[in-house]
Amino acid sequence: MNEEQILEAIRPFTAGIGDDAALWQPSRSHRSAISSDMLVENVDFTRDAMALQDVGWRAMAANVSDLAAMGAKPVLATVALGFPEATTLDEIVELYRGLATYAARCKLVVVGGDLSRAPALTIAIAVVGEVRTSNVKTRAGGRPGDVVAVTGRLGAARAGLELTRHPQLIAGDLREEALQALRRPESRVAEGRFLAASRNVTAMIDCSDGLSTDLGRLATASECGAVVESVPLARSACAVAEARGEKPEVFGLAGGEDFELIVAIRARAFRHVAARYAVRFKRELLRVGVLRAEPGLEWNGVPLEASGWDHFAHGR
Amino acid sequence: MNEEQILEAIRPFTAGIGDDAALWQPSRSHRSAISSDMLVENVDFTRDAMALQDVGWRAMAANVSDLAAMGAKPVLATVALGFPEATTLDEIVELYRGLATYAARCKLVVVGGDLSRAPALTIAIAVVGEVRTSNVKTRAGGRPGDVVAVTGRLGAARAGLELTRHPQLIAGDLREEALQALRRPESRVAEGRFLAASRNVTAMIDCSDGLSTDLGRLATASECGAVVESVPLARSACAVAEARGEKPEVFGLAGGEDFELIVAIRARAFRHVAARYAVRFKRELLRVGVLRAEPGLEWNGVPLEASGWDHFAHGR
Repeated sequence: MNEEQILEAIRPFTAGIGDDAALWQPSRSHRSAISSDMLVENVDFTRDAMALQDVGWRAMAANVSDLAAMGAKPVLATVALGFPEATTLDEIVELYRGLATYAARCKLVVVGGDLSRAPALTIAIAVVGEVRTSNVKTRAGGRPGDVVAVTGRLGAARAGLELTRHPQLIAGDLREEALQALRRPESRVAEGRFLAASRNVTAMIDCSDGLSTDLGRLATASECGAVVESVPLARSACAVAEARGEKPEVFGLAGGEDFELIVAIRARAFRHVAARYAVRFKRELLRVGVLRAEPGLEWNGVPLEASGWDHFAHGR
Repeated sequence: MNEEQILEAIRPFTAGIGDDAALWQPSRSHRSAISSDMLVENVDFTRDAMALQDVGWRAMAANVSDLAAMGAKPVLATVALGFPEATTLDEIVELYRGLATYAARCKLVVVGGDLSRAPALTIAIAVVGEVRTSNVKTRAGGRPGDVVAVTGRLGAARAGLELTRHPQLIAGDLREEALQALRRPESRVAEGRFLAASRNVTAMIDCSDGLSTDLGRLATASECGAVVESVPLARSACAVAEARGEKPEVFGLAGGEDFELIVAIRARAFRHVAARYAVRFKRELLRVGVLRAEPGLEWNGVPLEASGWDHFAHGR
């Protein structure tokens, strides 16, 4: 197959292939936001754990999650794909189908389609979004005393990953919940925009490297520390952890791959924000702990090391 | 080394590392433009031909060239880097230094810095630019009779590539010209903006895959064909081609890796545009041929096949 054939096959999933650059009209009174990410086979994903369509979905969701953490609405994404010689056209189409399916859920347009040979399947995505200037939230606005909360329960994607390695661990609905969280994760765009619009929300980050790592980043950027009081876990995470004989909290603290948001909220406003969140999303905004002046993270009275995913310190 | 150490080392070359996404304020009355590109070691570049600083420079120039071809001004770039385990911190810093050096020349801010393990050094860049809505030029506006021109002489980068393989071919100034074109190429941002501002310029594309391939793309997008009358070549391209016993024109037609722009201009306005270009840039806008109604490319009275670089049809 040659480049033109591939571009023809992926055209249904993209807009704007066919010029050197893709154009869009940015909204007035908004800032633009951009984030980029590279996923590499056997480093960031394996094909025995996930179909290529799921790989595409998850890759797009991971990028969109970075926008959600800024309170931004997704606008468009560019995709550059590197693939080994043995890759078939069908495989490339499956991957793009997954990317495009998640993109369509977010009303995000996929533009461009750079292709390259590579020794391993490599997906580089850049997503552009927009956020009203007055609503911009970063990692850095938290203050001691702020309540820390997450937009949903943690650990299900990690449980899903365990299940791809040990399929017999659990069965039934919880098994489905975990595999769905791994293969078809949702990012929290609506939640991020809702929370970013509140003056009482002081900092946000997404939880994709695990609660301990990402809360650590938020706290450090905010020149604070944090005390973790509880780790809200998905039921599937508890079930898989129990079956493996592991502490369930580890699935949330060090698990990673969850696209929930971690949010710092002024203590006096937490109840109010949480109540509005529950009405709007029919789910709870879950209290995790508090920011404190003293640096470092603490859990159960002992210091908590960042134990999430670091590509370079650990192998997978 | 761990992720934090690498981020610390590349921080001087970037802005905006430290949040999930980077923010900017788009200009009113402009459209935004985005283009992305992936470069893979031993596919798109080899380290025996180029130092890592040159690899970074060229990667950034290649991306900026896509903006230049739309008449856009570069604003920012995101870089995602994949690298093998054996890569040193110094190597990563050298690569970023090259990226940042070229970015600074274009007044382009490098934001973000996603890092991943990968089996081969992999550089994914997305560049964002801006173009006044009334100035947008694409590949598709050319009409039969339009003059086709290029912003500079072709083939020097290809000559440089030959020289890295056969260092004894030529010596002296022409050798330096060719190696410079390979390792420290310039993109044509100012030229692209100047030309895009003219109503008589009907279509533009950059020449990075070779004149025959890229002129073919412009002609096809414009629902035209084209006759190539002459291939303006760099002196170093002629010298190297002669030393290799090859037709010099092939270095321009099939060479690729040049970041000159190919431009279609209304025939009646060509002299005027070329004269203004010469005054502004102290270089000639070089006539290559004309667009015609009949599809396909012709050179010296015979059909010209697209013979530029296709990653998948050929090996390198």
